[in-house]
Amino acid sequence: MLDHPGLFLRPIHRFRKEKMTEVTDVLAVEEPLDVRIGRRSVAITMRTPGRDVDLALGFLFSEGIIRAGSQAFRLRSAEVKVKLGKDNVVTVHLPPGETVDWGRLERHSYTSSSCGVCGKTSLAQVFAAVPFAESLTTFRVAPAILQSLPDKLRTAQELFDQTGGIHAAGLFDLVGNLRHFAEDVGRHNALDKLIGHHFAQDALPLDNHLLLLSGRASFELIQKAAMAGIGLVAAVGAPSSLAASLADELGITLCGFTSERGFNCYTHPGRIDQVGG
Amino acid sequence: MLDHPGLFLRPIHRFRKEKMTEVTDVLAVEEPLDVRIGRRSVAITMRTPGRDVDLALGFLFSEGIIRAGSQAFRLRSAEVKVKLGKDNVVTVHLPPGETVDWGRLERHSYTSSSCGVCGKTSLAQVFAAVPFAESLTTFRVAPAILQSLPDKLRTAQELFDQTGGIHAAGLFDLVGNLRHFAEDVGRHNALDKLIGHHFAQDALPLDNHLLLLSGRASFELIQKAAMAGIGLVAAVGAPSSLAASLADELGITLCGFTSERGFNCYTHPGRIDQVGG
Repeated sequence: MLDHPGLFLRPIHRFRKEKMTEVTDVLAVEEPLDVRIGRRSVAITMRTPGRDVDLALGFLFSEGIIRAGSQAFRLRSAEVKVKLGKDNVVTVHLPPGETVDWGRLERHSYTSSSCGVCGKTSLAQVFAAVPFAESLTTFRVAPAILQSLPDKLRTAQELFDQTGGIHAAGLFDLVGNLRHFAEDVGRHNALDKLIGHHFAQDALPLDNHLLLLSGRASFELIQKAAMAGIGLVAAVGAPSSLAASLADELGITLCGFTSERGFNCYTHPGRIDQVGG
Repeated sequence: MLDHPGLFLRPIHRFRKEKMTEVTDVLAVEEPLDVRIGRRSVAITMRTPGRDVDLALGFLFSEGIIRAGSQAFRLRSAEVKVKLGKDNVVTVHLPPGETVDWGRLERHSYTSSSCGVCGKTSLAQVFAAVPFAESLTTFRVAPAILQSLPDKLRTAQELFDQTGGIHAAGLFDLVGNLRHFAEDVGRHNALDKLIGHHFAQDALPLDNHLLLLSGRASFELIQKAAMAGIGLVAAVGAPSSLAASLADELGITLCGFTSERGFNCYTHPGRIDQVGG
């Protein structure tokens, strides 16, 4: 079952009822895929490996870059040659004479908070860009403090909670007091708002703070937390494989599935008091 | 409370226990924000309005485009002038002589499946690009069939469910049989894989099918569904305001909070049997 490119095993520390145990957890793999038409890179997307040709074709079609299907459209799938390269590259070759609506791509040639990962295929490259990585502080928090954070953030989220569709990022001090939070339909935006607020106050880095994310932890959220100098990130949801790898490399303590009952610690458990065992 | 730019009221049809009622629901607003440095557009991100200056500064800082903070960095927040324009534009003006690391932006100048929305600020523009919009089929399904879909998708997801961190998109026929599904850490990628699979089989459009999304429904997922000719999209989570607007305009039936107990229908309820009332 686990011999699947989309799954990744990682030894972790699980905290439950004041006890810590070492177990192996299954993480979803997150890796960049470079989608090319001929020699031209059209998209770099963070994806779970396994059906890269489907992903490339579906992306190019649903973004209106290639066309397909019934009489109204030019290309049939048999005319599209797709080469699955190594190193996370898929190249689509169109039949001679077929053209791509590159104009549509122009409208895409912006970055967005949802694609801050674009092009950052090398962890080392990310590491080099993080200003506060050297100065991440060492501190210790009790598991009970981490477990108290989700309830506090939900209480603060009263307004937006009506919608059921909003992500939040909450910043806490080391004894678990909520210091700031931000909300957005995009989880990257929520974290950007939180960091931007402290930028505007010249209050970066945010060392000696805990960050709680209402959803899952992706590569990009860890990178943003590192930029702000945050040493411990707890997510209510699961982390991706790349989020854990990056947190490991950057010296960030990464917890997932954080709730009042416990949490998993994926990297650098030294910042958490290890009662029991 | 509801006089907040991040919240939006919409009349909807709520299906519970075989009964339909008309109620007003609160949706999270999703709108594009254009982040500019001087006259240059750096990012267009889909965000929830309300703290646009924080968002712009946090984005520019956490992506390494502007610098801030302690002695190692050049800019202090007081030196950064931010102008909040109308029409969803934030312009950041740097002090004279300050330069931006545009090289970092080059690495961003790709699109990704997470930012298919970039630049599509006009619903009309999106509408024009949808090939199958004219031919969306009219059909009717019973509420009980929609309510059965999440369990079926979760059962199929057995493998990836171990991670707790994977999104899925499931395609069902009109009597609720699962025909295809795809999984990914990115919900856009999951839908792209599903569409790409049918592209490769020359099986588009996917009219007379139901699409189930494991998470929330954003603008972009509705746009992709429309490209594939899918007339009914049911999400396990909430839709954004823009997802509902786009579904409305494109003639797509959009349901949210879909579970065995019921669902909300946000647009075009005519495809759902309205028992009771």
